[in-house]
Amino acid sequence: MASTLLSTVAWVGDGIEIIDQTRLPTSCEVLRLSTVDAAIDAIRSLAVRGAPAIGACGALAVVLGLDEARPASRAQALAMLDDLVTRVGSARPTAVNLSWAVRRVRDAAAHASTPAAMRECALSEAQCILDEDREACRRIGEYGRAELASASRILTHCNAGRLATLGWGTALGVVYAKAAAGESVHVFACEARPLLQGARLTAWELMDAGIDVTLITDSAAAPLLHSGRVDVVVVGADRIAANGDTANKIGTFALALAARHAGVPFYIAAPSSTFDPASPSGDAIVIEERPADEVRGWQGRFVAPIDVPVWNPAFDVTPHELVTAYITDVGVLQPPFLEMSGAARGARAVGAGQ
Amino acid sequence: MASTLLSTVAWVGDGIEIIDQTRLPTSCEVLRLSTVDAAIDAIRSLAVRGAPAIGACGALAVVLGLDEARPASRAQALAMLDDLVTRVGSARPTAVNLSWAVRRVRDAAAHASTPAAMRECALSEAQCILDEDREACRRIGEYGRAELASASRILTHCNAGRLATLGWGTALGVVYAKAAAGESVHVFACEARPLLQGARLTAWELMDAGIDVTLITDSAAAPLLHSGRVDVVVVGADRIAANGDTANKIGTFALALAARHAGVPFYIAAPSSTFDPASPSGDAIVIEERPADEVRGWQGRFVAPIDVPVWNPAFDVTPHELVTAYITDVGVLQPPFLEMSGAARGARAVGAGQ
Repeated sequence: MASTLLSTVAWVGDGIEIIDQTRLPTSCEVLRLSTVDAAIDAIRSLAVRGAPAIGACGALAVVLGLDEARPASRAQALAMLDDLVTRVGSARPTAVNLSWAVRRVRDAAAHASTPAAMRECALSEAQCILDEDREACRRIGEYGRAELASASRILTHCNAGRLATLGWGTALGVVYAKAAAGESVHVFACEARPLLQGARLTAWELMDAGIDVTLITDSAAAPLLHSGRVDVVVVGADRIAANGDTANKIGTFALALAARHAGVPFYIAAPSSTFDPASPSGDAIVIEERPADEVRGWQGRFVAPIDVPVWNPAFDVTPHELVTAYITDVGVLQPPFLEMSGAARGARAVGAGQ
Repeated sequence: MASTLLSTVAWVGDGIEIIDQTRLPTSCEVLRLSTVDAAIDAIRSLAVRGAPAIGACGALAVVLGLDEARPASRAQALAMLDDLVTRVGSARPTAVNLSWAVRRVRDAAAHASTPAAMRECALSEAQCILDEDREACRRIGEYGRAELASASRILTHCNAGRLATLGWGTALGVVYAKAAAGESVHVFACEARPLLQGARLTAWELMDAGIDVTLITDSAAAPLLHSGRVDVVVVGADRIAANGDTANKIGTFALALAARHAGVPFYIAAPSSTFDPASPSGDAIVIEERPADEVRGWQGRFVAPIDVPVWNPAFDVTPHELVTAYITDVGVLQPPFLEMSGAARGARAVGAGQ
């Protein structure tokens, strides 16, 4: 399994480097982010996207913020950290990983006694988040590979791969784990209108890794599932409520309905940081609505009338009853996710790899 | 209800004139078709599309064929008609209206005694098909308006409007009938990837007619239906099998599943010419697969890797059990469609407008 891929998000020197995902697949370019505003812009414009990757970028942006502001006292630094948690954490509303990551960096820094030590603790904690995501992806891949040992034809949506995480991905982590183990695997990738992350990113990274992929429109998933040519659906998540309702890229809900109708298992693959016990159900999840022009056309070229009203939610919520199980870094789970409450982690993993 | 729309398909002088739908909504241009090959190209390239409109264009193309070939005898003319039925009738495989229309013109012409009279009968029959479609649309609109008297928020897919027919459309005929009667109506239009007929054509023709429309991605339909903001789904059809299974634009099946899950009624609106008693079920319907580049990008600009494999069916089949009822020119029906067997027309209309 070859790959030319650079790191999706990295701390290099005294700044953040990301792969500019708005340029893929035409070109694979590194974008350097040297200020908090640049990092927030990158998150908002989807130059970096995918719940774990924006969490990582947000965590590092807190360090950038301390470097920019150079607080003179611990009190100043604490106030700045709170401000950064708000500014960076609200860059996009739906993925819980972002607010989780910036709060975690703030909390770690707050324990240090001087501004310099706080900055070191912040960077150290952010690097931990990156490392943990890499490891979480690896574990998700291995748990998923064990759970889906008999599946080789996998349908996925949007991009939950190397470009969405620090490691080899969540949904695509399962694919890469199977490929790395020498198992046969073929991916059907939904294109994911309006921003076509499936066409631009998933197709690109799988081809880059030498894995068979077939691109389809989102609408083609239902007849494809009905035709019996798919063994399992595996998608990522942006936020998973306590009852298992899952916010993910718009189109996931329709995919879950089609899978259920066709009798095909439907899995969510996500790290612990995506689980949000504070949201009792999907009703509590804020769904980001994005600009109308994303639907009216593509890259500045209008397809629809330029003034047509548009409804453009970036995510939808898949009810938990449509989800077969949740492939996580602590096992293959069912709600309630008792494993996610700190000490209990790993205690109640069901399915494979317990 | 104002409209600037020209006729979608017309016989003008000694040729066919169509609105070139590949240019909408940027410009509304008339394309003149003077040869059979030009007509077949227009059908294949979707310059004219929509099952009733391609039936009308195909019917007139048979007249063009006789004019081009100038048969010297009745026997020559009969042979040419058979050849035209094959050539024109197979320009696209899924919509039954096309083969139905060309066979009907052939059969009408075959009864005349001279090549000149055969040409006159062919043109007369083709004009009848155009007139009947106009009238069928009017009746579909009125039956639909009566059936859906309490519905004002209508979700539709692709384009089943004035641009797909000779009249005011099938699914959108219901919308226009409601608007013409002064009833409140708001349309949610799915964009219909990959060729975006919903964004390009439905949004354009509804705005042109002064009717409220909101454009959504195909994937946004499921959460929209789930949210309770839609009263009814109404779509057109390309072929309806004897058991009610319905081939229509890719995405219709997913829409029907989402409507069922949300408890929203799901209607097919189509003229008699769309019903195919020779297809016992959806399994018998040939689904056209179109070029990969339609999914890889848009209008020659690639979005996905240029060599990614693609599966691109133009249509899917919605199982009859997901369809609430069929709004037709002979009433609101349920399978078996006894009304479609000639003499029985109108005898078993159910629902409104009997």
